[in-house]
Amino acid sequence: MALLDDLKWRYATKKYDSTKKVAQADVDKIIEAARLAPTSSGLQQFRVIEITNQGLKDKIIAIAGGQQVVADCSHLLVFAVWDKYTEERIDGQFDYITDERELPRGRMSSYTDRLKKMYLNQTEKENFVHTARQAYIGFGMAIAQAAELKVDCTPMEGFSTDALDELLDLRPKGLRSVLLLPLGYRDAENDWLVNMKKVRKPKEEFVINYK
Amino acid sequence: MALLDDLKWRYATKKYDSTKKVAQADVDKIIEAARLAPTSSGLQQFRVIEITNQGLKDKIIAIAGGQQVVADCSHLLVFAVWDKYTEERIDGQFDYITDERELPRGRMSSYTDRLKKMYLNQTEKENFVHTARQAYIGFGMAIAQAAELKVDCTPMEGFSTDALDELLDLRPKGLRSVLLLPLGYRDAENDWLVNMKKVRKPKEEFVINYK
Repeated sequence: MALLDDLKWRYATKKYDSTKKVAQADVDKIIEAARLAPTSSGLQQFRVIEITNQGLKDKIIAIAGGQQVVADCSHLLVFAVWDKYTEERIDGQFDYITDERELPRGRMSSYTDRLKKMYLNQTEKENFVHTARQAYIGFGMAIAQAAELKVDCTPMEGFSTDALDELLDLRPKGLRSVLLLPLGYRDAENDWLVNMKKVRKPKEEFVINYK
Repeated sequence: MALLDDLKWRYATKKYDSTKKVAQADVDKIIEAARLAPTSSGLQQFRVIEITNQGLKDKIIAIAGGQQVVADCSHLLVFAVWDKYTEERIDGQFDYITDERELPRGRMSSYTDRLKKMYLNQTEKENFVHTARQAYIGFGMAIAQAAELKVDCTPMEGFSTDALDELLDLRPKGLRSVLLLPLGYRDAENDWLVNMKKVRKPKEEFVINYK
């Protein structure tokens, strides 16, 4: 099925059948799509946390405003991003890139010097505004991959990022949570949204042309 | 071809063959993927601007730090987002959603009241941090759709958003540019990146498990 058909098929699942588990091979593909996503300067400023521990998922219900989907889902993915840029993080990624490409380390130093000058002169808050955006590209890829596999998911921003960071011990790792993506299979009989029409702005309003 | 294969095929094209144009039907599909992307609360906080006018594309070279891809590409897409939330924008989208679902307007008012309370108590700058993120989901979908169609593209953040907003007269429309996506066909002989290995962090580093 083509991507556009997959995107029409998907919807933000509001009720999961908690007895149905997603095959690990499918979860791996969904995470792989996020891993392959492009990011600003190729820095891959985000990580994916995969949660299957039921006790942990249950604790996240309260952190996510009582939304049961985070516990009823099969796998809960958390997208977490670098809290800030550092020289070590930028150099680390570019050393890795040049190593993988069998180029001498430092080959891209005029480029990385520019990145450091830009990001290290910003506040941590400004850094985080930028790193957070990158996770949304991978989030889109993961949602598209789930749809291709006919795995349901629920894109979610509505949770206490501070509380989740504490629960998952993310801040000491230099990470901050930004997005949740429960994965599983819909409980169609009990999902109020499943039969609602998917509504998007008409194309004429969505697109602006300069010919 | 499966999405993962498409994502492995794609790369950030650095040199386009300016004689090759992308069929409008393919460009329409790429924009359609962005239109179908999920957004926070279904508000679709972003628009896609499609530029084929060569004079306009040429002017954007200077705005994009001299990067020639914005002019050599076939179609240049600009992703632009709401500068802020307003009561009218939130109500407008939800009136449209309830109309399309043949529900009475106001059916979702307890939800929209919560959204308004949250967003209208934030600064415009905080609003923009949030609206900007949404465009990145659609950006990911557009990149995936281009890859499925074997259309090359270049995900870009590196440009003066202020200068582009002025050139395209976006601010009076309540929009701010955040991303560029040139579309076209690679000039493989003159693209330094085309034969470089695609490098991503190893899965073991990218994923954190809580079993």
